[in-house]
Amino acid sequence: MKELEILFNRIVQRVNINLRELAFDVNPFAVELIPPDQMSKFYAFYGITPDHPLDLSFHNSALAGSYFLGKCRVQNSLLYKSDIRGDELKRKGNKVTFQNFSITLRDDEVIDIRDSALVKTLVHNYSHDPETPEHFFISDTLAMDYANIHGAPIDGAFLGPFATVDLTTVRDCVIGAYSYIQAGEISHQLIEPGTIWVNSPGNFNFFYRHPADQLEQYISLSPDKVPWGKLIDFIEERKNEFQRVFDVVNLKVIASVPESAKMDRYAVVLPNTRIGENVLISQRAYLENSTLGKGANAQENCFIINSTLEGYNVTAHGAKIIEARVGQNVFVGFNSFLNGKKGQKLTIGKGCVIMPHTIIDIEEPLEIPENHLVWGLIRDQNDLSNHMVSLESLSQVTTHHTIGRMHFEGNGAMLVKALKDRIHHILEVNGAFFANGENDGHAQRNQNLSLNTIQPFQFGPKQGMYPTITILP
Amino acid sequence: MKELEILFNRIVQRVNINLRELAFDVNPFAVELIPPDQMSKFYAFYGITPDHPLDLSFHNSALAGSYFLGKCRVQNSLLYKSDIRGDELKRKGNKVTFQNFSITLRDDEVIDIRDSALVKTLVHNYSHDPETPEHFFISDTLAMDYANIHGAPIDGAFLGPFATVDLTTVRDCVIGAYSYIQAGEISHQLIEPGTIWVNSPGNFNFFYRHPADQLEQYISLSPDKVPWGKLIDFIEERKNEFQRVFDVVNLKVIASVPESAKMDRYAVVLPNTRIGENVLISQRAYLENSTLGKGANAQENCFIINSTLEGYNVTAHGAKIIEARVGQNVFVGFNSFLNGKKGQKLTIGKGCVIMPHTIIDIEEPLEIPENHLVWGLIRDQNDLSNHMVSLESLSQVTTHHTIGRMHFEGNGAMLVKALKDRIHHILEVNGAFFANGENDGHAQRNQNLSLNTIQPFQFGPKQGMYPTITILP
Repeated sequence: MKELEILFNRIVQRVNINLRELAFDVNPFAVELIPPDQMSKFYAFYGITPDHPLDLSFHNSALAGSYFLGKCRVQNSLLYKSDIRGDELKRKGNKVTFQNFSITLRDDEVIDIRDSALVKTLVHNYSHDPETPEHFFISDTLAMDYANIHGAPIDGAFLGPFATVDLTTVRDCVIGAYSYIQAGEISHQLIEPGTIWVNSPGNFNFFYRHPADQLEQYISLSPDKVPWGKLIDFIEERKNEFQRVFDVVNLKVIASVPESAKMDRYAVVLPNTRIGENVLISQRAYLENSTLGKGANAQENCFIINSTLEGYNVTAHGAKIIEARVGQNVFVGFNSFLNGKKGQKLTIGKGCVIMPHTIIDIEEPLEIPENHLVWGLIRDQNDLSNHMVSLESLSQVTTHHTIGRMHFEGNGAMLVKALKDRIHHILEVNGAFFANGENDGHAQRNQNLSLNTIQPFQFGPKQGMYPTITILP
Repeated sequence: MKELEILFNRIVQRVNINLRELAFDVNPFAVELIPPDQMSKFYAFYGITPDHPLDLSFHNSALAGSYFLGKCRVQNSLLYKSDIRGDELKRKGNKVTFQNFSITLRDDEVIDIRDSALVKTLVHNYSHDPETPEHFFISDTLAMDYANIHGAPIDGAFLGPFATVDLTTVRDCVIGAYSYIQAGEISHQLIEPGTIWVNSPGNFNFFYRHPADQLEQYISLSPDKVPWGKLIDFIEERKNEFQRVFDVVNLKVIASVPESAKMDRYAVVLPNTRIGENVLISQRAYLENSTLGKGANAQENCFIINSTLEGYNVTAHGAKIIEARVGQNVFVGFNSFLNGKKGQKLTIGKGCVIMPHTIIDIEEPLEIPENHLVWGLIRDQNDLSNHMVSLESLSQVTTHHTIGRMHFEGNGAMLVKALKDRIHHILEVNGAFFANGENDGHAQRNQNLSLNTIQPFQFGPKQGMYPTITILP
């Protein structure tokens, strides 16, 4: 048997032993996951810049199409078109504060991926687990297409397609397709597909679940099949545009990007897109015929098409905005699918927060008023009315509040503050507030990243596997 | 001071301390050698294939545009567009025989480059020093444009442009521009430019020196200047053609290459070139409007333009063949410049051996008869008559023989045999005799090399320096 097959089989076994209590078998989902011949077709690559401490090592792994930035170790793993963006990892000497604890880091934090298979998965940010501040572990885990592992150490888990674990330590869990979990720490849970759960124990708890019969047309997964549905189709239809940017070693920067803005050279930017000051466009973002106002940021795997974003907008990892007018300071959460139509625009008032994994798929114009929180699956004005609440009303809640399928418990003002603080933090680290040489962030740094490519063995027992490589400053 | 500058200054000091006895100062030659901004402009790269044991490490070095294949360590060195082709290194367990000695290798051989600057230099083959069979060292050495370090461990040396050291261990020597040395072991010598010296102590000794006043129009070097002359101009005029092949990550293979032949993806092949069976075209070879017959091999940095090679031809590293008809089994040595003209063809009869570093630059047609040895600087029929000898006549020589500026001592038959054996060996290892699945060589192997690119830091004190990288299987 070839080494690639041995490797993959071992990963499947290791994930299954972790999930035995949930009686979940990842095997049938793994069968179609990675066509072995694809593994020797793509190169992987990593970024080199003095802005980030360099410490990469790859051992007995397959890395096709994947990208690495910052400190990362990969052992006995299979990464396929996954982005490991460790550019916000904590540094030696940083202080981690949690409740009344304060811990100083003994070493730089490292992303440590072992015995895992991550397919088209984004790993980003830093470990939010105060118990392992230097060690962002991802082990014995199988994560599927467009899953996000975001500041979330994870051990022994299965993540369905478009699942997101955010600032949450996960042990021995199954996270269903299109579920979003931000819950501090979870273990031995099976999360149904389409669950949106934001829990800050003792403070607040937000819970919503997409109706299964409606979600399935957007994203479906069943044994022995690759994931399918509108979300997959949407991405597949645009994948050829990415081919061009991966075919050449160094791509010329588009002239019309302001000096204070940053467009990643692995982003797709089609006519007629306008990019304002302090804008950050991340790798594998896709922009077409859209305007991004000052300080807007377009994160990895997001799509912005035929839309205008007025400024200071966060379009989070994997979010899709089509045919929309988006006011200032609007946040669109992970993997949201905001699907306006030509002539049937979606308008989002300033200051709105679109919860992660929200689907708005309209056939008539729809307008969301300013400063509202929006969630769920919305097809028209009627749906909107029971999938939103004004941030002001939410701030009044002190016990619990139910709207449609959404249940909220706890202190509404604390949730609103947590959301606002996070949005401000994201804009800040990305350089949205850069002025007069101060408040610089990712948009102004990383300007001169160099990218090194690595390729697998092309034949023999190691075909599709990558050599052992270590990279230090 | 930037690290790149510190590094380069240290190399210059180290070379100079080695050359103190010869009172040779490399400093003025080093000044213009490497424009620091070029060092961050080009990527370096290395080949990955199961055919060669992988063991590469780069530490505190600048590697712009350089290529690595096989085992190689680079420390505190500056390589600029140099090819390190360690694909013929000896392996653990191989036997090295020399006179009546036989030594079994304890480890795989490694090319070990320390404290050296190699500019557009080719390093190839394996150490021919029986004293260090596992260790192909290159240390405290400055080698300039289109120098060849070929099976020649070297310590404390300066190699001028187009200088070749071949199967020779060199210590504390200055090798002048366009000199070719194959002499087993030399130390503390200053070799004047244009010296062609092939010495097998006790067997034979071939010596020729190009007339300085005629050589200087082809290649000149003086302090504080970059090298100039017709040879440099010739290469510069064609360098844009190479840009194209280095700009893309994976280049499609040209369809018309026979399955038994190999065209390196970093070679330039322009219309209308025809490639026969078992042909090997190496990296950075340049072919234009030429025909390469069965089993021909075009080595690194060679140029073949408007010419026909009938088969089993060796065009050695850096050799240039323009407007020529070349018979079967002709060997054209390192860095030779065979410059026929349109309508004034150069014809070389079958079985001829053109000595390394030969210049034939004609304005009228010239025909070299079959089975002759040719050397020196030839402009017309008259020059030819005292720069050639038939291999048959040479085989008769038992004491000494002088023709024009060429002096030969020793056993002519042994020189002829050594040349013929070497040509046969080169054809054999390159796969020229491949048939029915047997006798495969480089042309049939390396077919699926993958190439990984590495880039330097783009700014900061390490600008132009490369990260520390180690690569193992």
